[in-house]
Amino acid sequence: MAPSPRDADPFLQNAMNDVSEAVNKTIDRLLPQTDLAENQLYEAMRHGTLGGGKRLRPFLVVHSAALFNVDPSRARRVAAALEFVHCYSLIHDDLPAMDDAALRRGKPTVHKQFDEATAILAGDALLTLAFEILSEPETHEDPRVRCELIKTLAKASGAHGMVGGQMLDLIAEDREFDLGTISRMQRMKTGKLMAFACEAGAILGKASDPHRRALCNYAFDLGLAFQVTDDILDVEADPQDTGKDTRKDEQAGKATFVSAMGKDQAKDRAEMLVQQSVRHLRIFEGREKMLKSLAEYVLERRA
Amino acid sequence: MAPSPRDADPFLQNAMNDVSEAVNKTIDRLLPQTDLAENQLYEAMRHGTLGGGKRLRPFLVVHSAALFNVDPSRARRVAAALEFVHCYSLIHDDLPAMDDAALRRGKPTVHKQFDEATAILAGDALLTLAFEILSEPETHEDPRVRCELIKTLAKASGAHGMVGGQMLDLIAEDREFDLGTISRMQRMKTGKLMAFACEAGAILGKASDPHRRALCNYAFDLGLAFQVTDDILDVEADPQDTGKDTRKDEQAGKATFVSAMGKDQAKDRAEMLVQQSVRHLRIFEGREKMLKSLAEYVLERRA
Repeated sequence: MAPSPRDADPFLQNAMNDVSEAVNKTIDRLLPQTDLAENQLYEAMRHGTLGGGKRLRPFLVVHSAALFNVDPSRARRVAAALEFVHCYSLIHDDLPAMDDAALRRGKPTVHKQFDEATAILAGDALLTLAFEILSEPETHEDPRVRCELIKTLAKASGAHGMVGGQMLDLIAEDREFDLGTISRMQRMKTGKLMAFACEAGAILGKASDPHRRALCNYAFDLGLAFQVTDDILDVEADPQDTGKDTRKDEQAGKATFVSAMGKDQAKDRAEMLVQQSVRHLRIFEGREKMLKSLAEYVLERRA
Repeated sequence: MAPSPRDADPFLQNAMNDVSEAVNKTIDRLLPQTDLAENQLYEAMRHGTLGGGKRLRPFLVVHSAALFNVDPSRARRVAAALEFVHCYSLIHDDLPAMDDAALRRGKPTVHKQFDEATAILAGDALLTLAFEILSEPETHEDPRVRCELIKTLAKASGAHGMVGGQMLDLIAEDREFDLGTISRMQRMKTGKLMAFACEAGAILGKASDPHRRALCNYAFDLGLAFQVTDDILDVEADPQDTGKDTRKDEQAGKATFVSAMGKDQAKDRAEMLVQQSVRHLRIFEGREKMLKSLAEYVLERRA
């Protein structure tokens, strides 16, 4: 079973469920079942993207976009594209040559359900599809906006962003990283894609620079807080709650925030980061309630 | 050593060398060496893209674009982006879970030179970088043109194109495909990316529909001819010439044009396809000489 946002207040919980449902429908429409000979590829893409996940990034896209009164159907398309990038990275990350994980969101990982080759191809196809979606007029009528979304997503997810962070993560297995390098690694691995989620709302809404920057800073701090709490959950949580293998980092000897600063200090750090993230949102003069609730949930979640 | 276009006439050979050199310089600039902790990722991206290859797709981009007097530096950027997509697909295709190849262009494949995880990530990063490059104003000042390039490349290389074709190719190991399915598979696997190469020139040049269609048809037939001759080379050629393992298809029991129709008929088919491809270019009234020479070279190449 997928983890539910059960630690969230009811107001946030409803909002998270709404985004999940809406984005699942969008994903389902973008990844139709086929009767093609290569249908296995589509099945693997669906397996890797549907049925589970907190949809944190889609939530950030949808509620950042709402600050600028963006058409929700456009925000959902961008949210789906971003979720495709996030899910492709999980599919590749779970491969035997990488984290070698058997479970994800309580289900067999894509290479377990299908095979390694199919998992590699499904990841490749999802990444490609993300950019296809963003390039189409349905995402925004202004091609300048579409190009800005594509450029920002590519930078956040490529060698200078998520993929580079994953490379560092692999290197971390054999090397001692200091806290500065761990922070840089996590900003690349998680933070930049979270920042894109919020920036995407601002780009779609043709927001002013200060508004875009505020959202970006919020997401960066939130992303880091998320990673710190992830590291804490990896040593504390019940696999039944998280739906994935725990203690993987410790077993792999990976440098994490917990290994670098201890659990208690890591908890303090997460709290500090969440407070800091929320302060960036003051520029929205009270309309940031949903994004603020999400930040508090990240701190309290148990999955 | 990389295969050289030694079967080409000197006129074509010079032109191919010119494109190779220029595109190598562009790739080298787009993939600088770094002193970052994750430098291994950039090294793997460089290993997988520099030093070898006929640069057939870049040639098609550059010389299609030349038909419409496109600024050559723009054509080279698109050529490099396309080559990144082609090379990422080779890196992933060579992985143990896919074709399990040790040699490519006479050098160790990326996962042999580095490791599997690095090869997966280097492929992911190259695919992402391709879209980043196309989204930037240096590629074309009109964002409509950039979006059209991105959409066309994504369609050609994703689940409905190259990646779908590779999925079919894997399925072909266990199933008997008829000639129609083999043709469809090859059009997806090779044809659509070749078609993009030529279409890209037309898109950059804001060409008329008939011109764009003519180039697309030329490339489709040429791509199929290329695949047929590839299948023939796989059973005939010396690995010293091709710089990669041969007879891989036969060993894997894969359905190829040679297995489906025999070598002699395959040779006739390739010749017919090349003649057909060149006929589409008549619309250019004599300015298509370079693309015509290339088609003839595809038929005669020994590597």
